[in-house]
Amino acid sequence: MQEEIIKALNTRYATKVFDSSKKISEENIHTILESARLSPSSMGLEMWKFIVINNTEIRAKLREAGYGQTKITDASHLVLISYRTDIIENISKERLERTAKIQNKNISDLEGLKKMIDGSIEQKNKDGSLESWVKMQSYIPLGIMIETASLLGVDNCPMEGFSLDKVDEILELKNKNLKSATMLALGYRGEDPESKRTKVRRDFNDVVEFI
Amino acid sequence: MQEEIIKALNTRYATKVFDSSKKISEENIHTILESARLSPSSMGLEMWKFIVINNTEIRAKLREAGYGQTKITDASHLVLISYRTDIIENISKERLERTAKIQNKNISDLEGLKKMIDGSIEQKNKDGSLESWVKMQSYIPLGIMIETASLLGVDNCPMEGFSLDKVDEILELKNKNLKSATMLALGYRGEDPESKRTKVRRDFNDVVEFI
Repeated sequence: MQEEIIKALNTRYATKVFDSSKKISEENIHTILESARLSPSSMGLEMWKFIVINNTEIRAKLREAGYGQTKITDASHLVLISYRTDIIENISKERLERTAKIQNKNISDLEGLKKMIDGSIEQKNKDGSLESWVKMQSYIPLGIMIETASLLGVDNCPMEGFSLDKVDEILELKNKNLKSATMLALGYRGEDPESKRTKVRRDFNDVVEFI
Repeated sequence: MQEEIIKALNTRYATKVFDSSKKISEENIHTILESARLSPSSMGLEMWKFIVINNTEIRAKLREAGYGQTKITDASHLVLISYRTDIIENISKERLERTAKIQNKNISDLEGLKKMIDGSIEQKNKDGSLESWVKMQSYIPLGIMIETASLLGVDNCPMEGFSLDKVDEILELKNKNLKSATMLALGYRGEDPESKRTKVRRDFNDVVEFI
């Protein structure tokens, strides 16, 4: 397994050109999304929604909002990771109800958890870090989807280079209490000169320190 | 592989109690850190440093800054993901030098890349999002280390619940142009009632939408 993981991550690269004729199998796309669903989040709040955009007209509009990048239309699958904007109103309540239901408890047994969550959200709301903290959580399932895809031989490219406001508008996210965080293009590489370049990474001893 | 990934992520949970007598093998900890090193980052800037804290005195101090959580001292390994604060001064320059060296190019061939990076950093500096964007990137290798560890049967717990300022102080990060983002405790679960609880996650159709 050690070798498989390192090989998969070494083989992956930020795929710029996808072969639009090659599609990810149902099983593989489900595994990628399921691994995102199982991703941990701060205090288990799961403050995200994964939107898989298959509609070709919407993809074309997103490509415009993404400075014409061909991967937005050519990748087999395009996943937008969005984050919830109704944190204060709903997210703690939902978390407690979900936990009570799944673990067969009364909500009143979860006072400690409720206090911790509400206190943390209140603090972040006060110091102005709430939204960036919520958005930040999106990058955990982003990392997880990248690794899962790579292990399954699915090429991928995380994307930030697009107008988030335009994406929100195209997908009508405001009405759903959501905002765009980042996108992940998934599929199979086409003829891409980038794929032949040597991977650029800092040396191990430059990014890892033992103390 | 599909089944192995889902099983690993289903088996993992936010480990609260570690068995301090069980240590992660050299090969496994190297694989976990190597997968973090191979993690993608926005524009390939790798604006992070992974600090593995083995020193028991420092661990004890961190435990105080982490409200006494036993996992800080008892986990086999404790990895702090920190992010660079010298973005404007150094990060673009380093990225270009690294790329030129590894891909055997002249820096003058990388004008397009330089423009993109500098423009993006300038924009984020102007609109006030630079630091949270840099910090956010840390959560990609966090997700990747969590998945790698889980695939290797290593229990893990991502942590935000500590005073970041105190951690920066204890580890003297300011002098190194670094700030704490998040920590990951790694090791093997001890007698932990939490490990027997049913995993709480939203339903697939509640977090994934196809359009």
